[in-house]
Amino acid sequence: MYGAGDVRVEEVPDPILREPTDALVRVLAAGICEGDLPPYRCMPAAGQGIRAGHEFLGVVMDIGTDVSGLRVGDLVVAPYAWTDHTCEICRDGLPMSCGQWGLWGQGGVDGGQGEAVRVPYAQGTLARLPVAADSALLPSLLTLSDVLSTAHHCAVKAQVGPHTSVAVIGDDAIGLMAVLTAKRRGAEQILVIGRNPERAGLARHFGATEVVIEPGVFDEPAGPADGGQGVERVRAATGGHGPHAVLETFGSIGTLETALAVVRDGGVISRTSSRYAEVPISRPLLLRNITLTGGAAPARAYADQLLPDILDGTIEPGRVFDRTIGLADVPDGYRAMASGEALKVLIRP
Amino acid sequence: MYGAGDVRVEEVPDPILREPTDALVRVLAAGICEGDLPPYRCMPAAGQGIRAGHEFLGVVMDIGTDVSGLRVGDLVVAPYAWTDHTCEICRDGLPMSCGQWGLWGQGGVDGGQGEAVRVPYAQGTLARLPVAADSALLPSLLTLSDVLSTAHHCAVKAQVGPHTSVAVIGDDAIGLMAVLTAKRRGAEQILVIGRNPERAGLARHFGATEVVIEPGVFDEPAGPADGGQGVERVRAATGGHGPHAVLETFGSIGTLETALAVVRDGGVISRTSSRYAEVPISRPLLLRNITLTGGAAPARAYADQLLPDILDGTIEPGRVFDRTIGLADVPDGYRAMASGEALKVLIRP
Repeated sequence: MYGAGDVRVEEVPDPILREPTDALVRVLAAGICEGDLPPYRCMPAAGQGIRAGHEFLGVVMDIGTDVSGLRVGDLVVAPYAWTDHTCEICRDGLPMSCGQWGLWGQGGVDGGQGEAVRVPYAQGTLARLPVAADSALLPSLLTLSDVLSTAHHCAVKAQVGPHTSVAVIGDDAIGLMAVLTAKRRGAEQILVIGRNPERAGLARHFGATEVVIEPGVFDEPAGPADGGQGVERVRAATGGHGPHAVLETFGSIGTLETALAVVRDGGVISRTSSRYAEVPISRPLLLRNITLTGGAAPARAYADQLLPDILDGTIEPGRVFDRTIGLADVPDGYRAMASGEALKVLIRP
Repeated sequence: MYGAGDVRVEEVPDPILREPTDALVRVLAAGICEGDLPPYRCMPAAGQGIRAGHEFLGVVMDIGTDVSGLRVGDLVVAPYAWTDHTCEICRDGLPMSCGQWGLWGQGGVDGGQGEAVRVPYAQGTLARLPVAADSALLPSLLTLSDVLSTAHHCAVKAQVGPHTSVAVIGDDAIGLMAVLTAKRRGAEQILVIGRNPERAGLARHFGATEVVIEPGVFDEPAGPADGGQGVERVRAATGGHGPHAVLETFGSIGTLETALAVVRDGGVISRTSSRYAEVPISRPLLLRNITLTGGAAPARAYADQLLPDILDGTIEPGRVFDRTIGLADVPDGYRAMASGEALKVLIRP
């Protein structure tokens, strides 16, 4: 990526093992994530491009001498950040709170949207997948990298469980994954506030009990949002009180204010992202006993927890991919996702 | 109270029953609360005074025809706000989220710092106390009105329990009550960041394992606070990671920033108050997986839960009162609390 709207497919040198803790992975599938779109929209033009992509799975081609638990030929998925994953902090589920982590495409590490990746701390970073390279489950397994694990974490932090009523704000891939994880955790009601009528069917397939289309909520920059009829409908569907938990997957001031408008007093707003530097509300949180939570997901640990449900078909998160392309079409894949034409793009290098 | 620093003791007409849901209470003990101090410091001079006080207990003198469960002569304590306490929302522990509540001293309701109070919705508002009017437990029972229940709620929302390490920010009465409630809930470590060296002994008595005096943290308006050595000491005492929960009882930007500096990644900041309109941090909460919670306590419900521990002497929250005065000395009581000369003042009308 050389700037806003400027994605190029280029030949680069093959990665090699640099550290004894590295592994090399040949990429079988990679995703374009909503998280890739902010630089695609805003990055200043640069002479030097950045390598993109933080969702990938593939086959181990080579391993360093200090890597155990992995063998050449293993199928593996990588979380959205590499981590040592040996310390107490990582084991506590806080991969980005230990010093040993980094993002793909930064600091001499490859991006995931390519043919091969050098993986730092491969033993802690990579999760083995007990399927064949031609498995039909690869799209679902790829969601373990980020969207599924991030949505799962959002629901975990919100303490979604049986008897919980949930509102999901956003119908991008992360919002649809939030619906799926809320359903998986037994939520009683799952109400989606979205902006794309054509995604309502998939939202319902994943478990939404009601979908409210309110595109204005997602306008940016947002004025004070009252959420319009969407707020009324969500509150009406929850006995007038609002849902116990709001999974706020969009990250704008407008969607945060919508979350505040719909959530039940005493409830939880769980966020996956924040495009704003300050939370523009404080005392109403206290008066209404609302908890604000969410955060960076321990995707590596969740991969092991969520894997069985993918393997046995309990969940099919891979249905979130509605377009599959080769490497040559990655620039068009970005365009399609940024325009909303594609929900989520799968790259098969 | 007629303005900043201007508290007067005046004769007013005796209260009478106005609604069939009212009761009249003769006040035996009332408190001056940190919450009374902001108007004492900042209220513009007014020709018409406001009635003050939201912590009181006393004897039922008369009851309306629609009040059941109370008898004349009962000893009762009032929570910091009156509430109907019959609806689902109140029963969910959200007394200030139902429409039927109000503050003492407002809307024709008496303040608690006086000889007698007309109590709206007396059946839902008042908690009976099974002690005599001359019981030595009255100071402790009076803390059920606000400081104890608010601190308890802060610890409940922070999920403080056994094996939890806790930092309490503030050593005013509410901070000391937070220490007591953290101890009562079995916290393993309780570290206090305070500003009054002379309160360290009482903090330790209530259960603090370490007291760090850092007055600069409490300066207002606060610049960016790094918390000085206090943060280092708290983090060092918790294995370098910080405590699982921070009970933030002071409510300034500086103390919130201190809370953020000390809390363990993945931990909880639970607040009792907020003098700021916006939370000046957002993305670090996500990156570090920190939960922000707290809120208005269901003091009426907690009165029943906490009462047994006061009656059997398990907790002695009344030790927080270090001065007892009559009604005539209330103006001096305010002065003494505002200056820090008194920790908490008990009024015996």
